[in-house]
Amino acid sequence: MGELCVRSVLVTGANRGIGLGFVQHFLRMPKPPQWIFATCRDPKGQRAQELQNLASKHPNIIIIPLEVANPTSIKAAAAKVGEHLGGSGLNLLINNAGMAKPKMLDDETLEDMTEVYTTNTIGPLLMGQAFLPLLKKAAQGSPGSGLSCSKAAIVNMSSYAGSIEDVYVWEFGQVVSYRCSKAALNMLTKCQSLAYKEHGILCVTFHPGWVQTDMGGGGSFKPPLTVDDSVQGMLKVLSSISEKDTGTFLDWEGKILPW
Amino acid sequence: MGELCVRSVLVTGANRGIGLGFVQHFLRMPKPPQWIFATCRDPKGQRAQELQNLASKHPNIIIIPLEVANPTSIKAAAAKVGEHLGGSGLNLLINNAGMAKPKMLDDETLEDMTEVYTTNTIGPLLMGQAFLPLLKKAAQGSPGSGLSCSKAAIVNMSSYAGSIEDVYVWEFGQVVSYRCSKAALNMLTKCQSLAYKEHGILCVTFHPGWVQTDMGGGGSFKPPLTVDDSVQGMLKVLSSISEKDTGTFLDWEGKILPW
Ligand SMILES: NC(=O)c1ccc[n+]([C@@H]2O[C@H](COP(=O)([O-])OP(=O)(O)OC[C@H]3O[C@@H](n4cnc5c(N)ncnc54)[C@H](OP(=O)(O)O)[C@@H]3O)[C@@H](O)[C@H]2O)c1
Ligand SMILES: NC(=O)c1ccc[n+]([C@@H]2O[C@H](COP(=O)([O-])OP(=O)(O)OC[C@H]3O[C@@H](n4cnc5c(N)ncnc54)[C@H](OP(=O)(O)O)[C@@H]3O)[C@@H](O)[C@H]2O)c1
Repeated sequence: MGELCVRSVLVTGANRGIGLGFVQHFLRMPKPPQWIFATCRDPKGQRAQELQNLASKHPNIIIIPLEVANPTSIKAAAAKVGEHLGGSGLNLLINNAGMAKPKMLDDETLEDMTEVYTTNTIGPLLMGQAFLPLLKKAAQGSPGSGLSCSKAAIVNMSSYAGSIEDVYVWEFGQVVSYRCSKAALNMLTKCQSLAYKEHGILCVTFHPGWVQTDMGGGGSFKPPLTVDDSVQGMLKVLSSISEKDTGTFLDWEGKILPW
Repeated sequence: MGELCVRSVLVTGANRGIGLGFVQHFLRMPKPPQWIFATCRDPKGQRAQELQNLASKHPNIIIIPLEVANPTSIKAAAAKVGEHLGGSGLNLLINNAGMAKPKMLDDETLEDMTEVYTTNTIGPLLMGQAFLPLLKKAAQGSPGSGLSCSKAAIVNMSSYAGSIEDVYVWEFGQVVSYRCSKAALNMLTKCQSLAYKEHGILCVTFHPGWVQTDMGGGGSFKPPLTVDDSVQGMLKVLSSISEKDTGTFLDWEGKILPW
C-alpha cells in the first residue's frame, strides 16, 4: 500500500488521450517523478502541441520520439532514455499507445489485422525487451523485497474488449482485430509477469474504463469516464498493488477482470 | 448427441500430424463424407506423399492447394471447393494448420510474432470469411433447428498454450508468439460464434491434447497422446456438442478449458 513514488516513468502515446492524462497526473503528484519520458511518434506535429506546451513549463518532462510499431525507433528511444537516466534505472513503463479500426468481422483484412496487432501487441513486447535492462536496474536499486510499481513495473494498456470470457459491447463495435490484439496483449502480460518476476518487475494489464478520448468517443456517443477519472483511478490502483497482483487484468477501480 | 454425419468437410494442414489424422478418421467412419477437402500448401511435395497415397485409394479425398497465410490462395481454394460441391454447402471447416517457433520471450522478433500470428490467427479469420457462403448454404440445407457440427461448424485448432488463466508448460517452452496467437485465436472463435450464430454455424476452439506430431514432439520428449487418440476424442466431442457449446474452448475429451 501507500503512495506511488517513482523517480522515472515512461509513457507511450503521451501526446493525447489517456497517455497525456498520465503525464498531467504525474506532474500533479506531491512528489513528481524526476524524469517523465513522454514519448510520441510525431513530437513536432500538430497532435503533440499540448504536450509541447506542458513540457515547456515542466523541465522534468522529456519528450522522446517513439513509434511503437518500429523496432529501430524503440531501440533508439531506449538508448536516449538510458543516456538521460545516467546510471539509474526506469521504474515504470506504461505501454499506453494503441489503435483500433472500426470494422465488422467480415470486413477485416490481413493488412488491418497485422497493423493493429503490431501496434497493440508486438509493440509492448518489443518495448519490454528494449527497456528490460533499465527496469532491472531500477528493481536492483530499490530497497526492500517483493514487487511494486514504485520499484519496477510494466503496465500494459489493454481493454475490456480483450476479455474472451465476457465479450464487451459487441453491439457497439465488433472490432475483431482490436479484440484479438488485446487478448494477445493480456497473454503477453501474463508471460512477462512469469519471465520478469525473477528480475523484480511487476507486470499488469489494465482496462482504463470507457474513456472520453478520440478512441473512446467515436461518433456522437459520449463515454462515461473522463480521462482524469480514469487516470486517477489507475494511479491509485498502481500505488496499492504488490507481488500477488503481478500478471493480473485490472480495471481503473482495481477490479479483477476475467480473461 | 449422436453420430457426426457430414457430407463435406475441409481440413487445413491435412498432409501430416493432426490434420492427416482427421482425414484418416473421416475415411474410417461408418458413413464417410462424400467430399473430404484435404488442403495443404505443397500437394506435390515430399511432405504430402502420405496424403497423396491415401487419395489415390479414396476418391472422396480431394486435395486442394492452400497456404493459410495467403488471402489469394484462400480465395482460390474456396472457389475450387465451391465448384466441387456444385450447389451444396460445406458442413465442417477445420482450421487445423498451425506453426510454432521455439523461442524465449526476450528473443521474439517483430518478424516471428507476425508470421506466427498470420498463420495461426489471421489465417482462420480469412478462412471463415471465404467459406462463410458455403457454410451458410450447408446450414440452410440441413433439417432441424439449433446448431450442430453435422449441420455447419467452424473448428479452430487452438492449444492449451493459448489459455491466459493457466499458462501451460511454461518451463517446457515460453513460445510467446505461439501463446499470443492462440489466445487471439480463442478470441476470434468467440467473435465468430457471436457473428455466425444467426447463420446457423457452430464455432468452437480446441486443445487437441499434447500429441505425437512434429510440432508436439520436438526433441527427445515423447508426448502422451497419439494422433489417433487425439482425433478420435475430438470427433466424439464434435458429434455431441450443440448450440449451448458454441464459442467454447474444449479439449479432446470434451472438458471446458479456461480462457
Ligand atoms: N478510450 C477508451 O475508452 C479505451 C478503452 C479501453 C482501452 N483503451 C486503451 O487505452 C490506450 C490509450 O487509448 P486512448 O483512448 O487514449 O486513445 P487515443 O486518444 O486514440 O490515443 C492513442 C495514442 O496512441 C498513440 N499511438 C497509436 N499508434 C501508435 C504507434 N504506432 N506508435 C506510437 N504511438 C501510437 C497515438 O499517437 P498519435 O497521436 O500519433 O496517433 C495516441 O497518442 C490504448 O491502448 C487503448 O486501446 C482505451
Ligand atoms: N501436437 C500438439 O501437441 C499440439 C498441441 C496443441 C495444439 N496443437 C495444434 O494443432 C494443430 C496441428 O498441429 P500438429 O501437431 O499436427 O502440427 P504439425 O505436425 O507441425 O503440422 C502442422 C501442419 O500445419 C501446416 N501448416 C503450417 N503452416 C501453414 C500455412 N501457412 N499454410 C498451410 N498449412 C500450414 C503444415 O504444413 P507443411 O507440411 O506444409 O508445413 C502441417 O500440415 C496446430 O494448429 C497446432 O498449433 C498441436
